[in-house]
Amino acid sequence: MPGDQASAAAVTIEDLTAFCLRALELVGISPEDAATTADVLVTTDSWGVFTHGTKALRGYIRRIRAGGIRTDTRPRVAAEGPAWAIIDGRSALGMVVSTFAMNAAIARARACGIGYAGVFNSCHFGAAGYYAAMAAEEDMIGLAMANDIPSVTAPGASGRVMGSNPLAYAVPAGAGPPIVLDVATSTVAGGKVMAAEALGRTIPEGWLIGPDARPSIDPAAFLAGGALTPMAGYKGYGLAILIESLAAVLTGASIRHQVLSWMGDDPSMATGHGGAFLAIDIGAMTPIGEFKRRVDSMAREIRQVPRSDGSDRVYLPGEMEWERRQRALAEGIALPADVRWSIIELARELAIASPFD
Amino acid sequence: MPGDQASAAAVTIEDLTAFCLRALELVGISPEDAATTADVLVTTDSWGVFTHGTKALRGYIRRIRAGGIRTDTRPRVAAEGPAWAIIDGRSALGMVVSTFAMNAAIARARACGIGYAGVFNSCHFGAAGYYAAMAAEEDMIGLAMANDIPSVTAPGASGRVMGSNPLAYAVPAGAGPPIVLDVATSTVAGGKVMAAEALGRTIPEGWLIGPDARPSIDPAAFLAGGALTPMAGYKGYGLAILIESLAAVLTGASIRHQVLSWMGDDPSMATGHGGAFLAIDIGAMTPIGEFKRRVDSMAREIRQVPRSDGSDRVYLPGEMEWERRQRALAEGIALPADVRWSIIELARELAIASPFD
Repeated sequence: MPGDQASAAAVTIEDLTAFCLRALELVGISPEDAATTADVLVTTDSWGVFTHGTKALRGYIRRIRAGGIRTDTRPRVAAEGPAWAIIDGRSALGMVVSTFAMNAAIARARACGIGYAGVFNSCHFGAAGYYAAMAAEEDMIGLAMANDIPSVTAPGASGRVMGSNPLAYAVPAGAGPPIVLDVATSTVAGGKVMAAEALGRTIPEGWLIGPDARPSIDPAAFLAGGALTPMAGYKGYGLAILIESLAAVLTGASIRHQVLSWMGDDPSMATGHGGAFLAIDIGAMTPIGEFKRRVDSMAREIRQVPRSDGSDRVYLPGEMEWERRQRALAEGIALPADVRWSIIELARELAIASPFD
Repeated sequence: MPGDQASAAAVTIEDLTAFCLRALELVGISPEDAATTADVLVTTDSWGVFTHGTKALRGYIRRIRAGGIRTDTRPRVAAEGPAWAIIDGRSALGMVVSTFAMNAAIARARACGIGYAGVFNSCHFGAAGYYAAMAAEEDMIGLAMANDIPSVTAPGASGRVMGSNPLAYAVPAGAGPPIVLDVATSTVAGGKVMAAEALGRTIPEGWLIGPDARPSIDPAAFLAGGALTPMAGYKGYGLAILIESLAAVLTGASIRHQVLSWMGDDPSMATGHGGAFLAIDIGAMTPIGEFKRRVDSMAREIRQVPRSDGSDRVYLPGEMEWERRQRALAEGIALPADVRWSIIELARELAIASPFD
């Protein structure tokens, strides 16, 4: 029965977390940092954002073992002021650096109303939405962003100009889940193109230009030197430059081609990613209950707008991911084949049991 | 000769500014507030952003004369903390409220490193980029955003869900102009659709859905109850909700349909727009000279990327507008027919000379 098959394929959040902890501790990550990292990756999978969850653990561990991600350092505050901090990630895991930085932004927002934490010497941080959501759990509005190696073209250009620099935000609600958006500034994230390549599928027109600067529906053209298209043309290109400015130019992180690929480049080298985290303490400015009633009222109105043909529902940002997570908490996560494969390979490399054994 | 014709059609920045000052003072705006407003509108025209410049003055003055925009109030700080302020716009001109708010954000950034100013009881503020650029002139990174009446649909919805809520940022550079991006979160701003309607032209596919929730290339379908498409689908829709949250939900401003149209609704009523302004004091965090060298280096690299077929140049955000402004300062501004018409009508209504007389 299909139901049985889905059930057989699902892994519980507990088992997946335990696997991540075991794998990370085995390569020298402290229990605390392993717990942080496992929570980021497994939460991301529970949202159904499989391109940015535990699928990446194998690549992170490869860098840890080669020395490009360090296990003997923790991030530290390199410079600070009343409402800001610049964080030296010290080449620790991107998840460890980014949670440290968002906590620094939250602490400063609690003191001053708003806080900014900029990061240098970090690594790939996974799903930006996780860090934004940390602020929402503290009744704050959160924003998270990061730079990355260029993979996206620009209007008038041929080839790769900016990273797919992600931007996420979270706004706490009263009755419903927080509103959470997490977007790449490319039309789609590179991970989706690579997932299509792994599955032998073509991609929709408009996602990619090939190495010959012509539109392509062949995901292999990306690996062959093509470039993603920017989200909404000059708008996504422009937002990527804002994110590069806040996450790297301001923080002293590597900029554009100075960043190394966390997947493709020499794993013994630090990637040098930058990041930017903002928190706004709502309760300092307006009664939090009143704010949440206003969010709830806006959300209710939006859910009730007329639907287009064939549409069941109008979602608030993050609502779909929230519902997937509720289901995952109850029923486990049905991981796609590429994620399962990556985890099984990692288990084999570390000579430990996979969570599917 | 075409050159002569263009030259005859151009108006100097001084003459256009003088006309705005005269018109605003005639309806009771103080010289100081008139100067602020004229500078916002004429600067916007000098960038070639004619949908948001002096074309709107006639509509603002209509509201001033009817009482919906007040001449006897100035914005004031309603609540504040170390790094933030909530500004009551008191139904003054949107340009007056917004420059007041950005100055409040800049002052707090100078004290704390970052500053947020949220606004309620404002009106349409014109081009968001003007306010972001104010911060860049102070060697800060600036962000400006505002909400507006719903005109944009959402994935799965039929009809209007969110405003075209604009977002602008500015980053100061060393050698070149500041990097400035100013975008609507719709595919295109409603003003472009209305300009096409006025000129009797069709619009490209993908900009608009008609009242029947089907794609339309007829700009009249917008006025008949259609909706703009969100920029990049759920991404633009999601960003519009972030902007609504920062500019209205947090500030106590009118939300979504509570906002009145500055053009279409009863001009004796306050529109209730919200706004949000952020400034980050670069020099507090890193030597400003070093930051600018990093911006210049990034800009230089981007200008030198390979070009696509038929492309002369890869522009940085705001570079095109900056060059138009340099030309406008030297040669005057060649205003399009719809802007000239609006100014001539206003001059007639106020019984004053137009800048073209």
